[in-house]
Amino acid sequence: MTKPTLKKQSKSFGGWTQYYEHASSACNVNMAFSVFVPPQASERKVPVVYWLSGLTCTEDNFMAKAGAQRWAAEKGLLLVAPDTSPRGEEVKDDEAYDLGKGAGFYLNATEPGWSKHYRMEEYVTEELPELVKANFPVTSGPAGVMGHSMGGHGALVLSLRYPELYRSVSAFSPICHPTEVPWGKKAFKAYLGEDTERWKAYDACELIQSKGCKFSLLVDQGTDDQFLDEQLGTETLAHVCEEAGVALSLRMQEGYDHSYFFIASFIKDHIEHHARVLNQ
Amino acid sequence: MTKPTLKKQSKSFGGWTQYYEHASSACNVNMAFSVFVPPQASERKVPVVYWLSGLTCTEDNFMAKAGAQRWAAEKGLLLVAPDTSPRGEEVKDDEAYDLGKGAGFYLNATEPGWSKHYRMEEYVTEELPELVKANFPVTSGPAGVMGHSMGGHGALVLSLRYPELYRSVSAFSPICHPTEVPWGKKAFKAYLGEDTERWKAYDACELIQSKGCKFSLLVDQGTDDQFLDEQLGTETLAHVCEEAGVALSLRMQEGYDHSYFFIASFIKDHIEHHARVLNQ
Repeated sequence: MTKPTLKKQSKSFGGWTQYYEHASSACNVNMAFSVFVPPQASERKVPVVYWLSGLTCTEDNFMAKAGAQRWAAEKGLLLVAPDTSPRGEEVKDDEAYDLGKGAGFYLNATEPGWSKHYRMEEYVTEELPELVKANFPVTSGPAGVMGHSMGGHGALVLSLRYPELYRSVSAFSPICHPTEVPWGKKAFKAYLGEDTERWKAYDACELIQSKGCKFSLLVDQGTDDQFLDEQLGTETLAHVCEEAGVALSLRMQEGYDHSYFFIASFIKDHIEHHARVLNQ
Repeated sequence: MTKPTLKKQSKSFGGWTQYYEHASSACNVNMAFSVFVPPQASERKVPVVYWLSGLTCTEDNFMAKAGAQRWAAEKGLLLVAPDTSPRGEEVKDDEAYDLGKGAGFYLNATEPGWSKHYRMEEYVTEELPELVKANFPVTSGPAGVMGHSMGGHGALVLSLRYPELYRSVSAFSPICHPTEVPWGKKAFKAYLGEDTERWKAYDACELIQSKGCKFSLLVDQGTDDQFLDEQLGTETLAHVCEEAGVALSLRMQEGYDHSYFFIASFIKDHIEHHARVLNQ
């Protein structure tokens, strides 16, 4: 495993916000991720929480805009935010913002053209955790995972597909039911092919119905989110969780939209949700 | 006075982060600014604090990255962050990042080419406060002013030149002594001409020496700031404040740099500094 290269860092809340690049074997290309190392990590190993970003984001948006470092510094959590897709000239792309670069959807693509690099599932669940454990002072147990929009989909789906890797899960404005909304249908068709049965393995609602969910889920959703009606499937998530007896805390936040201003307003609660579980 | 046009808004911490544009008479061109309206403003008038940004910034950087809204919402302060210069095709510019657009230096330019639009001093001390008082639920008394780098220079210089307009002042990594550093010399020569005597009216250290300062100043400065040695003149500020008996709280923050990660780490203290004075 190649050691990641530190590209830049800034002291933040007594810890460090850092940006790395490394040669990724999962994605067959250089990948970028950001880290917040809390002050406690200079004295002991700390739990890690992964943040998965939404469409068009890079490894920077969350660290620059969410204000999570203050609370991670308080609770002693190391944060890791990977880029949302492979990048580079050799990587297939699409003109649209919701396919290709910036839109990896946290799955392993199987279709020609996409399958060589678009392997974000393997990257986030295997390569990146191994790299983090080898290079940062993190505890060895399961991690926390959270995300926004496409990354909320990622947090839900990856924790449902790999429950042994995680102990705590939360999401902002997640794409809950991608097999039934335009964003998901477009991406799954491109990355996974025409067979809609195969899409279900990457749909949080389908997974909860078929496998259940061992986690207590914290989900924040703005009521004035411009994508709520068409793209997210939030009601279906509430329904399948109720049917399956899953402990879902779905907070409909009055007047909030889909932006990082929404995330910043409630990130403290999410960090505390993860800290309660991971710091036990 | 033209009413400002609301371009977009997002609910934040129970209040609203808003972006406006309006036809500016001071700058003879459309100007942009952002506002955070705290939740308290729906029930009463609240004090206003101006944020002046640094080189290359727009009205967006502070609202997106500093995390100030959380604390302004707690303390009931309305925040206003203007763009750092006039913009638009008709506005003179320079290829460099430290002159022209994004580099207004909070003065009224007198030199040909610049003097038509580069009137940020009049804009920030006259036009914008009038517009804010006419369109937002703010108290009528003096305001708070704070800023970063070039905007820290702005906060210091404008509060020293117009002490009647302000009650509280703070700065992050301010350009304290622009007449003696490359950024200041370049900008003042372009905007104000060759006569260095005229530059002194826009130099915080010169102003404190000649006029004193009635404010208790809070200044945060990172020790690992890449611009500390060459561009800021922080030691001179400390010296003239001591000589003049000015209450300067200069906090040298170990290991911090010039970035918004530094600002975010200490913005809570600055908001509380302003709230202590303005909420009396």
